[in-house]
Amino acid sequence: MEPAFDFDRYDHIRPILWTGEELQLLDQRKLPFEVTHVACADSDAVAQAIGDLVVRGAPAIGIAAAWGVVLAARATEAADGADALRKLEPALQRLNAARPTAVNLAWALARMRRALDAAGSDWRDVLEREAAHIAEEDLAANRRMGALGAALVAPGSGVLTHCNTGSLATAGFGTALGVIRAGVAQGRIAKVFAGETRPWLQGARLTVWELQQDAIDATLIADSAAAHLMKTGAVQWVVVGADRICANGDTANKIGTYQLAIAARHHGVKFMVVAPSSTVDLQTPDGDAIEIEQRDPGELHGIGGVRTVVEGIAGWNPVFDVTPASLIDAIVTEQGVVEQPDVAKMRALFGG
Amino acid sequence: MEPAFDFDRYDHIRPILWTGEELQLLDQRKLPFEVTHVACADSDAVAQAIGDLVVRGAPAIGIAAAWGVVLAARATEAADGADALRKLEPALQRLNAARPTAVNLAWALARMRRALDAAGSDWRDVLEREAAHIAEEDLAANRRMGALGAALVAPGSGVLTHCNTGSLATAGFGTALGVIRAGVAQGRIAKVFAGETRPWLQGARLTVWELQQDAIDATLIADSAAAHLMKTGAVQWVVVGADRICANGDTANKIGTYQLAIAARHHGVKFMVVAPSSTVDLQTPDGDAIEIEQRDPGELHGIGGVRTVVEGIAGWNPVFDVTPASLIDAIVTEQGVVEQPDVAKMRALFGG
Repeated sequence: MEPAFDFDRYDHIRPILWTGEELQLLDQRKLPFEVTHVACADSDAVAQAIGDLVVRGAPAIGIAAAWGVVLAARATEAADGADALRKLEPALQRLNAARPTAVNLAWALARMRRALDAAGSDWRDVLEREAAHIAEEDLAANRRMGALGAALVAPGSGVLTHCNTGSLATAGFGTALGVIRAGVAQGRIAKVFAGETRPWLQGARLTVWELQQDAIDATLIADSAAAHLMKTGAVQWVVVGADRICANGDTANKIGTYQLAIAARHHGVKFMVVAPSSTVDLQTPDGDAIEIEQRDPGELHGIGGVRTVVEGIAGWNPVFDVTPASLIDAIVTEQGVVEQPDVAKMRALFGG
Repeated sequence: MEPAFDFDRYDHIRPILWTGEELQLLDQRKLPFEVTHVACADSDAVAQAIGDLVVRGAPAIGIAAAWGVVLAARATEAADGADALRKLEPALQRLNAARPTAVNLAWALARMRRALDAAGSDWRDVLEREAAHIAEEDLAANRRMGALGAALVAPGSGVLTHCNTGSLATAGFGTALGVIRAGVAQGRIAKVFAGETRPWLQGARLTVWELQQDAIDATLIADSAAAHLMKTGAVQWVVVGADRICANGDTANKIGTYQLAIAARHHGVKFMVVAPSSTVDLQTPDGDAIEIEQRDPGELHGIGGVRTVVEGIAGWNPVFDVTPASLIDAIVTEQGVVEQPDVAKMRALFGG
């Protein structure tokens, strides 16, 4: 039986607030030093905010876009859902184009379209309820993943995480960081380490700030200190999120994840991937089929407008890497846990 | 037979200049955008500059400390070397305490002590000649190591290096970067990658700048992208320096080195340590006996003077880690190469 624990005690951040009148987005570009919100009064303002990275994290982007549809509905007259769907099409397309690579964005908009298509004259209320459901389901999924993932961690453990997979990236609670919240709440996790996550420093800027808001002590490390940390025996699990999980369990995630997985295996440290089942892509057989996005090498040339590298230097800046299933001890989703993932176990839980 | 190549073509930087009156240290904290020198007129200024990382890199620290002794001698009256040795003891101890892990510092000071102990009334001249010899021998050793290390690399190889082990870290030419210089000059090394090396960014700030000075193309990567880079097949060798090499071949070097060694072994990429024999410490049996210097976690709180982390966040900031001999394919010194190092092979080359 799972120990009971108080989720809310460790879950104070909401990046997306619907006031009933407008959408307020926590401006993640300004964190951690300024906690300000961007108020969006219409759907184009939401599209702009998504494109400008006011809101980031695949689940959070999808939720924001759903509220964007609600805002578009406010400015539209229609007899029923089907009529509204035709009239809202331009707004839907502008929202969809805000971050064309984000899978959850298209997924959330598809849900809104389906709800609208079936709606009658109460189509505005239907849209508002659907947006609220998307957000509530994400939060519930995260809490479920938190409980499932934390249950794998022995009491008194230390954990290391990478990038930001927390409340900021979701409706709340987070994926990998949700497991850490749940594990801390249950007393299973005694010590949390966060890697800086170059080049964007999501760990340094966002993760440790987010944990601080919830009064969870976190210790920041340089990404390259992880193996040495493992050697000291301070961590028993590496807990990370995922951008895409293939049919065989191979997982694409923020650059540096693969290196952590290799170091973890070398030290007998366990490696956990935490992501909603919508991240599982059964159409992609394995990691070799994933094209790794390369970003501007200029991201390696400095930060905050301060340049640290001379002009004329080449850089190689992949955003993601692929961790093979063979290095993963557990994939945790809201539908359940796959330990030592392979094609058969993945298929058993996720179908396909 | 080794292919002939032009050392000087790839060797333009000198971090330590003795004017005959004072020691001028290229201020590595301000590189790559400001090329300025810190002038040290007495030995305490040298100790301070070593502690403040004006000069860094184990061999360079040793050379700077030797000149520090020469400066201390200028302020001391003594009848002969033995008398001077007693009087200089406080200055020698302050120099020795400037950085804890670098064995070259103690080694250089021990050489200066021995020279002094044997000296007569010309003890000041003896000290100055000894300091000059230490610097000259370092440059010659680096060029020898460059030739020996490059000979291990198959033509057309890609290499990855970490931190800065170049002219800036030595009297000139460099250790691991000396091997890269020699390998490029011989056409053996076709592609050079450099890790940023958080938190001090020696790779981003110094190594790519230094290579650019010598017209060697280098590609910068985030430290955490190394494993993914290896997976692409782009590198055949990781080539790094050392701060201390134990009797069994275990090697202390910049934080992140150990993580690279684990990733290299995982991918079948070879791992080379390049350091002068003065780095070999036969008194330290293995890596477990090495005290790892911890620096201020504040070094993780920003980049280039820009703060990126909120107040009140703990950090864990070890400067070095230890790579076990079992992960090292070759230790290259000016006395020769030890492949697959162990106690017996180390003893065969270095005695003890």
